[in-house]
Order: sequence, then C-alpha cells, then structure tokens
Amino acid sequence: QTTRNALSGDKLGNNQSWSPVSVFNVLRSLSAASHGLTDEQKEFQKVAFDFAANEMAPHMAEWDQKEIFPVETMRKAAQLGFGGIYVQPDVGGSGLSRLDTSIIFEALSTGCVSTTAYISIHNMCAWMIDSYGNKEQREKFCPDLCSMEKFASYCLTEPGESACEKTAEFFVGWNCQPTRAVIFEDCAVPVANRLGEEGQGFNIAMKGLNGGRINIASCSLGAAHASVQLARDHLLVRKQFGETLSNNQFLQFKLAEMATKLVASRLLIREAAQALQEDRPDAVAICSMAKLFATDECFNICNQALQMHGGYGYLKDYAVQQFVRDIRVHQILEGTNEVMRMIISRNLLSES
Amino acid sequence: QTTRNALSGDKLGNNQSWSPVSVFNVLRSLSAASHGLTDEQKEFQKVAFDFAANEMAPHMAEWDQKEIFPVETMRKAAQLGFGGIYVQPDVGGSGLSRLDTSIIFEALSTGCVSTTAYISIHNMCAWMIDSYGNKEQREKFCPDLCSMEKFASYCLTEPGESACEKTAEFFVGWNCQPTRAVIFEDCAVPVANRLGEEGQGFNIAMKGLNGGRINIASCSLGAAHASVQLARDHLLVRKQFGETLSNNQFLQFKLAEMATKLVASRLLIREAAQALQEDRPDAVAICSMAKLFATDECFNICNQALQMHGGYGYLKDYAVQQFVRDIRVHQILEGTNEVMRMIISRNLLSES
Amino acid sequence: QTTRNALSGDKLGNNQSWSPVSVFNVLRSLSAASHGLTDEQKEFQKVAFDFAANEMAPHMAEWDQKEIFPVETMRKAAQLGFGGIYVQPDVGGSGLSRLDTSIIFEALSTGCVSTTAYISIHNMCAWMIDSYGNKEQREKFCPDLCSMEKFASYCLTEPGESACEKTAEFFVGWNCQPTRAVIFEDCAVPVANRLGEEGQGFNIAMKGLNGGRINIASCSLGAAHASVQLARDHLLVRKQFGETLSNNQFLQFKLAEMATKLVASRLLIREAAQALQEDRPDAVAICSMAKLFATDECFNICNQALQMHGGYGYLKDYAVQQFVRDIRVHQILEGTNEVMRMIISRNLLSES
Amino acid sequence: QTTRNALSGDKLGNNQSWSPVSVFNVLRSLSAASHGLTDEQKEFQKVAFDFAANEMAPHMAEWDQKEIFPVETMRKAAQLGFGGIYVQPDVGGSGLSRLDTSIIFEALSTGCVSTTAYISIHNMCAWMIDSYGNKEQREKFCPDLCSMEKFASYCLTEPGESACEKTAEFFVGWNCQPTRAVIFEDCAVPVANRLGEEGQGFNIAMKGLNGGRINIASCSLGAAHASVQLARDHLLVRKQFGETLSNNQFLQFKLAEMATKLVASRLLIREAAQALQEDRPDAVAICSMAKLFATDECFNICNQALQMHGGYGYLKDYAVQQFVRDIRVHQILEGTNEVMRMIISRNLLSES
Repeated sequence: QTTRNALSGDKLGNNQSWSPVSVFNVLRSLSAASHGLTDEQKEFQKVAFDFAANEMAPHMAEWDQKEIFPVETMRKAAQLGFGGIYVQPDVGGSGLSRLDTSIIFEALSTGCVSTTAYISIHNMCAWMIDSYGNKEQREKFCPDLCSMEKFASYCLTEPGESACEKTAEFFVGWNCQPTRAVIFEDCAVPVANRLGEEGQGFNIAMKGLNGGRINIASCSLGAAHASVQLARDHLLVRKQFGETLSNNQFLQFKLAEMATKLVASRLLIREAAQALQEDRPDAVAICSMAKLFATDECFNICNQALQMHGGYGYLKDYAVQQFVRDIRVHQILEGTNEVMRMIISRNLLSES
Repeated sequence: QTTRNALSGDKLGNNQSWSPVSVFNVLRSLSAASHGLTDEQKEFQKVAFDFAANEMAPHMAEWDQKEIFPVETMRKAAQLGFGGIYVQPDVGGSGLSRLDTSIIFEALSTGCVSTTAYISIHNMCAWMIDSYGNKEQREKFCPDLCSMEKFASYCLTEPGESACEKTAEFFVGWNCQPTRAVIFEDCAVPVANRLGEEGQGFNIAMKGLNGGRINIASCSLGAAHASVQLARDHLLVRKQFGETLSNNQFLQFKLAEMATKLVASRLLIREAAQALQEDRPDAVAICSMAKLFATDECFNICNQALQMHGGYGYLKDYAVQQFVRDIRVHQILEGTNEVMRMIISRNLLSES
Repeated sequence: QTTRNALSGDKLGNNQSWSPVSVFNVLRSLSAASHGLTDEQKEFQKVAFDFAANEMAPHMAEWDQKEIFPVETMRKAAQLGFGGIYVQPDVGGSGLSRLDTSIIFEALSTGCVSTTAYISIHNMCAWMIDSYGNKEQREKFCPDLCSMEKFASYCLTEPGESACEKTAEFFVGWNCQPTRAVIFEDCAVPVANRLGEEGQGFNIAMKGLNGGRINIASCSLGAAHASVQLARDHLLVRKQFGETLSNNQFLQFKLAEMATKLVASRLLIREAAQALQEDRPDAVAICSMAKLFATDECFNICNQALQMHGGYGYLKDYAVQQFVRDIRVHQILEGTNEVMRMIISRNLLSES
Repeated sequence: QTTRNALSGDKLGNNQSWSPVSVFNVLRSLSAASHGLTDEQKEFQKVAFDFAANEMAPHMAEWDQKEIFPVETMRKAAQLGFGGIYVQPDVGGSGLSRLDTSIIFEALSTGCVSTTAYISIHNMCAWMIDSYGNKEQREKFCPDLCSMEKFASYCLTEPGESACEKTAEFFVGWNCQPTRAVIFEDCAVPVANRLGEEGQGFNIAMKGLNGGRINIASCSLGAAHASVQLARDHLLVRKQFGETLSNNQFLQFKLAEMATKLVASRLLIREAAQALQEDRPDAVAICSMAKLFATDECFNICNQALQMHGGYGYLKDYAVQQFVRDIRVHQILEGTNEVMRMIISRNLLSES
C-alpha cells in the first residue's frame, strides 16, 4: 500500500496534480474550447470545469473502484442548474440550449465520465417529460428531477429481446452507474403516468436520442480533452534514456494528431447541437455524425494517451485508464456506431 | 475511340451528368455546406458553384490531359471577383474575409482542383503585395493581378537546396498548372520591386502560408465534396449481381464515414479561417490542424470514392480519379503534413 | 443476481458454450492454426487447447474478478511440460523449439491470457538460468521451476527510475498476476546466485526479451483467435430487427478483416520464432515486427469483437471484454511498441 | 528539359541509382525475401531481380509515359522461363510451383509493375489451357505462349453489363498494358478452340482467379518492396533543416511500420501460394486474404513512401509515384477487395 502511494501519480506530477481547471487553462487556446462562445457560456463553462475539478475529479477513482453512485455530489451539481439543463425554467429547469448543454457535459466529464453520463441521461428523461408531458406531469415530475431530489432512469428494450444492456453489470467501465433490469410483470401503469398518447412512446424515446447522442459524445469529448492534457503533462515530466518523453518526435506528432481530432470532434458536436436546437432538416444526420466521429475518435485519443503513459497508463492510480474504460461503451450506447452509419447513409442515399 | 465513347460516363449517368450544381443541391442539407452562412455568403457560394459547373467541370479532363493552363477561364473568374478575393477593394480586390475565400475555393474546386489551386496561389501572392507592399507597389501590381490580366507565381527555395518542387513536371496530378524552375542568375531586382525591408521576405512568405494552408485545404474539400457525390450517384445507378451497389451495407456505411469526415473537414477549415481572420493566438495551430486533417481525410475520401467506382474509377473518363491525383500533392505542399504536426505539437508542448 | 444469470452468455449460447476446443475445430481451416505443423506439434497443440478449454476457460472470469493467482492450475500445466517448454530436458525442461513454444502459448491463452502471460514469463526466467547459469545453478533452480514447484519473477528497472510497472496494481487487466515492487535494500545477493559475470546481467535480460516478445505476441494471438470465434458465434445467434447479425454485410466484412489480420499475425509470429531459433541475423528485427504487429492488431481484433457484441461486449459475463483488457498491456510490456519501431528502423537504416 | 535533367533523381542519388538488385541486397535480411527458400528458389529469384534491374527498371518510366507495350523485353523474359512459369514442361512451360511463381513476380515487379502484371495475366491464361485444354489445344497454343511468341488476353464480362474495365483506357496507371474492348459480334468460335465442355467456361475462369489473386498481390509486393527501399535511400540522402531526413524519429517509425507490413504481406502471399499448391480446403479463403491484405497494405506502403519523398514524390522523374499509380488498381481487379471480404466472411460464417 505504502509502495503504491510512494509511486502514485502525485509524486510524478501526473495524476493528482491534474485537474480540469488546469486542462481548461492550458488547452484553451489550442483546443478552442471557449472560442466563439458567448460570455454567458464561458461563465457556466467555468462553473462546470470548477465543479469537475473540485467535486468530481478527486473522487472518480474511488467511485469507480467501489462502484459508488455519488448521490450527494449530483445534488450539488443540480444546485448549479445541471439537473435539468435544457428543461424549461417554469418547472425548475435551466432553460439552456443544446449547445449550452454540450459545453457543460464536456466540462463535467473531465471530472468523471461515468457520473456525467448518468447526469446526461437524467437530463434527457427530464426533458422528455418537459416536452411531451401534460401540465400535471410537468409540474409533478420535473421540479424533483431538476433538483435531483429524484433520479430518473431510462429503460429501453426490443420486445422479445432481452434488454441485456440494461440488466447486467458493466466490469469494463461506467462502474459508478448502476445498470439493472427493471421488470414490469403484470404491472399496471396509470394513464396519468404515461407520456403522450398510447403508441407514441417509441417516437418520444427516439426523439430523446438525438439529444442523447450529442450528450454522450460530449462526455467522450471531455474524457479526450482531459486525456490529451494528461498525456501532454506526462510527456513533459517523464524521463527515459536521460531526456523527457516530449523530446520524442513520434510522440510529439501523435499528440498533434490527438489534439487535431479533439478539435474536430468538438466542432462536429457543437454543429450538431446547433442543428438540433434550430430543428434543421439535417439535424438527425448531423447528430449521428457527431456521435459516430466523436465517440470513435475520442476513444482512440484516450487509448493513445494511455499508450503514451507506458506502464503507468495501465495502473489504477492513473486517471487515463479510467477514461479509456468509461468511454468505450459510448461507441455502443444510444444506438451503436453501426446504427449511426445506417442513419447517415440512409439520409445521404435517399435525398433527391 | 468510338468504343470509349460508347462506354463513357455519359451513358452510365455518372460522369457527364455530374456538376457541382447538383452536388450543391443534393448534399447541402447533409453536408451543411451553406448552413450558418450569411445571405451574402450563400450568394457568392452559388456564383462559384455555378461557375465551376458551367465553366470548369466540362473542361477539367481536357485541361489535365493536354496540360492546358486555362487563361481565359481564369480571367472570367476574375471578372466575378475571384482574382483578388481577400485583397482590398481600393486596388481592385473583393475585400472579402478568409471564411468567404474558403467558401469560394471549396466551390470552385468541384469544377477543377488544379485550376482552383492555382487561383488560390495567385490570390495569396496578390494579398502579399496588398498587405506588405507600399502605395506604389499596391497600385502598380494589384489591379492587374485582381483582374488576372497578369498571373502571379510563388517561388520558394531553401538556399543550397534545389527547389525541386517548383522546377520539374508533376505527372501524378496538377497537370494544368505549369511548375517550372525560375532561375535568377546575376539578376538584379530593383528595390522598387522588393516587398518590405531587406531580410523580411521569409517572414512575409511564411505569413502568406497560413492563408495558403486554408486555401489548399479548401481545394481538397471541394474535391472530396464532389467525390462523395459522384460515389453516391454511382452506387445508386451501377448494378451488380442484379441490384444496385447502394444496397450493399458495407458501401452504405463507408459512404456514411466519408460524409462524416467531409463535414468534420469543412468545420475545421472554417474554424481556421475565422481564427486567422480574427488574428486569434491559436490561428497558426488551427490552420495547421485544418490543413493536416482536411488534406489527409479528403484524400482518403476521394480514394475511397474511386474504390467504390470499381474498375470505372481507374478510367480517365471518370472525374473521380482526377480528383484523387490532383489533391494528393496537397498533403505535401504549403508545408508537408509532417510539418503541420510539428507546428501543432510545438504549440501544445510550449504552452504553460 | 438471478436476472444476470438468466441473461448470461450461457442462454445466448455465447459465453459458456465457448471453449478453445471448439475454437480450434471451427477456425482451423480458415486460420491455418495447424497447417504446416508437424504431427508432434499438432499433438501438443491439441493438448494445450484441451487444457485451456477444460482447466482455464471456465475459471478465467473468476480469477480476474477475485485476483486469484491460480497456483494449482499452473502446476497441472507444468505436468504437461509447460513449465519449462524451451528449457533443456536434463534439468526437467521439455526441450522444445521457439515455434513449439509459440504454438503452446497461443493455445493456452485462449483459456486465460493473464495466466498464460505469467507462465510465459516464468518460462523466460527458467530459460535464462538454463542458458546462462552454470552447472550448479541449472541443477539447483531449473527442476523446481519446470515443475512450477517454485514460481519465477522478472524484475527490471532503470537505475534512478521508479520501476512502476512492476510495483503497483494493474486495474485494467492482468488481474490474476500479482505485480509488486520488490525492494532489495542493503541486500547482499550471494555470487552463487548471480547469473553470468558481473555486469552481464543487462545483456542476459535483453537476450531473454526476444523470446519474451514472441511469447507475449503469442498470448495476444490466442486472445484474438478466441475473440474472432466469440464474435462469429455471437453474429450467428444474436437477432436484431428480426434477423441474425450475421446477415449484416458490414459486420461480415469486418469479421473478414479480423480473420485476415489474425492469420497475418500468426504467420509473422511463427516466422519470428523460427528466425530466433535459427539465430538468423534478422531475428531481433523480425521479433520486434511480430510483437509490434501482432499486439497492435490483435488488440484491434478483440476490441472490434467487443463492438460486435454490442452492449453484451461490455458486460463482465462475456469473455470478450476480458480479452480486450488483458491484452491491452501487451502493447506496452517487453518494450513498448514505440521501442519496437525504434529497433526495426535502426536495423533498416543502418544496413549498408 | 535541361532543367529537369539537372534536377533529376540522378543528382540526388535517389531515383536512377536505385535498382532491384540493390533492393534485394539491402533489404534481404530485414524483409526476409529469401529466408526459408530452397537454393533453387534463391537462384531464379536472383535471375528475376537481375532481369528487373537491367531490362525493366531503366525503362519503366518511358513505357509508362509513352504507353509502350514492351514486346521484346517480355520475350527476353520468356527465354528465362517466365512466359509459362506454372505450365507443364512438356508444352514449353517451366513447371514451377505457385510459390515459385509468386517469388518471380515479386522480383520482376520491382522493375515495372504494369509489365509484370501483364506477364502474370499471360501466365494465368497459359495455365488455363495447360490445365483445361485437351492434348491438341495444349500442343497448339502452349508453346507459343510460353515463348511469348504470342500474347494472351483475358476478357471477362457479365452478360448485360458493359465490361468497362477491359474496354477503355486507364490514365491513372498500368499504362504500358493496352486494355481494350474485344467485341465478338456474330462471331463463330470453332469448338476446337473452346476449353472444356460447353458451360464450363465460367468455372475455369474462376479457377484461374485464385492464382491470379496471388500473382497480382505479388506484383503489389514487389512495388512495396522497391518503395520501402526508395524511401529509405531518400531519407538517408535528403537533407532538411541541416540534417538528413533519416534523423526524424517520426519518419523512422513510419519506415518501421512500412517494413513490418511488407513482411506480413509477403508471408501471407506465400502461405496462400502454398495452400493453393497443396489444394488445401482453405486455399480460396487464404488467397482472398492475401489479395485483400497485400494489395491494401502495399498501396499504403507505396503511398507513404511517396509522402516521405515530399515534393519529389509527385514528380514524374521519381519511380515511387509510378509504383503508387500502377498498384492502385490491384485493389480493384481480380475481384475487388470488397469481394475478397465477401469470400472470406462466407467461409468463416458457413463453417460448422
């Protein structure tokens, strides 16, 4: 135990010294995380980065290893308005845009991907009630969701298929989110609790997914953002054969490729957020593109960052491996990336 | 000869039926080529697409095969304001922004990459005189350049190295642009013809390259834009084993990947154009990212489009192979993509 | 818990029904795992596959989750001759070749990568004593190592650097192998326990690494072999939108790519084994090529197999995710794959 | 013209100094082009490399630019036994194996891909008559084909489809091979000229393709072999910023990756050749794997070698660009690489 502590990231200046705030400071010019944003957007971006740095990052390893669902931390996040970001203010939401939402989730996930991904799903559920619920439903459910007094869950299954994704334990990543089977056997759901008309449910669920895809992609983006920073810092500190790794041209150039793909991912996500906000006809396709590109490339970025850490990258004391594990599932959830390709190609081939 | 005509793209509805205008119409929602643009930008984007479709595309194969430098066509382009797009109006320029310029070069290069790439270099030279020339120089040189009465050339060499790139023939692509050695032996250049102070030349040349990188990347983008369209049309028309290629899921998904990378390339280029326009501190790095990403990915897009054409893709009657050949050099010129990685990584590693 | 069982791989015919024996049967023609082998080689290949199927595969998930170092299982393996495969028979070894060794480790790792990787390191240590030890050392240490009565450990550090890889816990994979710091503070090692002359140690350690690279690559190969099989079986069983996944052309083609890279990896590893056995001048470079190519591509294969499982691939009940986690470190250990590139390029550039 | 000569590869020590013989000498240990071969195989491998160096390489650029079909050179090759390599000796063939054939085509194509690819098609046709012809046909046609007194052509079309690949001009590469439409309108072919029974033709054509795939892959291999050598030599000679390019770690590592994939391609091709020779049940799948992997990866190798040449790589004076252009079509011919994936996946999914 002592041994491990003695060799922890702290001493090497990697792990513990890292915080999303420093990520933000160091990378902001290059990665343009805040360029083109309004002053208000920069404001809550900073709030989210600070929250990630102070309230999440110091605990993300523990939450992962002990599989803790950090209820109190999330309620603090809700006090900042993160429990119902794109829910209307009259029922307790923050009334922000899709782009605002993406900026917040990107920042939060630098502190813990798994927790942020849960918050994003919770937000999607609250938005569904806000958008498709009647007056009674909105007033009954939304305030407690926006404050995260209550926590939402998203259950989706194909009839006749076992909804395995939602019923068994993940042991690759997303450990702080409990995923379980919810079985409604002979269970009458009162009409008052049903969103929309009978038969509309699937459409509503699908509508939510466009935003869900931007959100999950934003979580991948935050992880990649943090991993580029971690890799950069490691290269500047770690010596091999007498000089720092940052003198290796191969690693320099790889870092350049990572940063380039990070920026491309961010631009695509923000474009998708805007397309969805404006209800543009290409919104579905662009959301799919953003999800496909960003979750694939951000996984590659994190995985390459792990490689740059050498043996350290494989150690539980180093955050980079947790980012890799946690975002792997983003290529699968909210529609696999194969489904994304299907949506995009259908749009492209069907246009006249 | 007759045989070839009988089997030309015309009959298959691929090659000859293609025009940048249809590209624009079909892809506009998906690829968002015009989303977010001002009305004025949409206006000259349309002008450029029309010019590419009517004045360039019908001739691009011939210019390539016969190595024709299309002087008259370019002068027509200059009448539309494309000879000095980002040159000030007082000396005959159009006074447009970097983003406007990128939009125009993207559109023009769907009609012929090599010609557009030349026009972009000509523009860069005119801009240098506009920006770094004194009153006399601006007034003496710029008007004739903006009207393309005179044509500019860009010669760059390392002392002691043979500037081979500029002196010998290309036979891969860029055939309609003459590249030749220009040898100044014992040649006195009058001070009146020198831009800036003595010794400043290299810095001026380098300044021009940031814009040059956006421009060349925009030319790659137009080629990729057109190639995605050509591939899509081919898939919808060409039958194999009794059904159209568009029924092949593998090809559908590849097309989706191509379109996704096309959109990512466009967003990165436009971000770079804006960064340069605003003289942002990250402009040099973002321009390098845009050049690296877009010229690499757009080559891959065009090359994949060629593959989708099967044997047709290798035939001179099909435009797709010319796009592949013409943009290959964009990964090398204006600083190789290895140099782009160097610039990006230096920025990233030097920030504090 | 019940829920999880009900949805376990067993019911879906994926996980539990899988065994290396079936892998061997199904893939043997395509993957040529046994083509070109002698009858004797096929014999112990079958023994190793059987051992993996019966003694290892049923426990690999438990060993991983509970971090069990399976001492008794390994001693059973040693009884089959796997404790000192390329150690001379006079001290208890099996006296087999490098190629034989690779075949065995490939087969064993289909049952558990982490355990097999440990066995391979143990073998490397035994070989070092066999090759560089004097008569007394060979007779004193080798028999107990070959029977795995005693277990060897490999400690390697750069002076002045913390040998972090060997001292802290892995939480990505390799969980059944304890990696710990071994600190010799003021500890006198008797000369009788020192291999070779003073100062020779580093060279001996390096010599061992060529074989170590083939071995670790072989472990990646076994994991990829099993993962291709698991993915194939999943595609044939799992239904989506009313038909099995195997009807998706995109997935079919991806599977084809995976199998192709699997075969290429195997051929390169076996070529390297033979080069090392024959002490060919290109042995060091070819061993590095095999390690670079196979550990990179086999990780990609396993990761793609995980993707093909959709949400299932992320679940702890499914073996595929363990293969992904366990082999990730192979791109880092025994010299990172960046070091492999260095070795190869030095060879290539220094030849006259 | 003078200018171009003055700057030709000759002076830089790149282009003209290159010959397949030096390729063979320099790369042989690393790339293992001759390891594991019998003495006889090494013998004719050397003959083929010498022929490529002396009779082909000096002319490949001219044949390409002037679209010359080098009849006399090929007849000289036939005198060495390369006109009917795997045709039986009783009708003038060399009676060699598939592996022998692959070794020869690999060596020859370092001198000119397009010419060698034609010779390989000619060989395939001669083999078809040798294998499926009756006594009269074998005696009538084979001797003149083996001596290349007559030249064979391979015409393949889908009924109802225009066999465009065979009827129009290629202007990307393969310029020294005339591809033309051959139209049999109301043309009676005497039964004596028909191979096999009526209706068997398609099967015979397909049988030939397995060997054809190995051959075309071998041609890609030779081009990649030469390109790695050209890139290596360029890196060692060309200076930038005061030192040779070979000091760039990024380029070193890229070169290592290229050499690794070259060796993997060779091993896969030779495995396929042996599988076909032994008529193994996996022969069709392995031939498809070899064609898929080698033609894809060798194109990437050549294209990366071009990139390493910088601007030079795009010039007609440099052989590397011709290798890139000539082998691009190998990913399309003899069944596109998409068809290869189909064949492999069918094999994999249909096995029980």
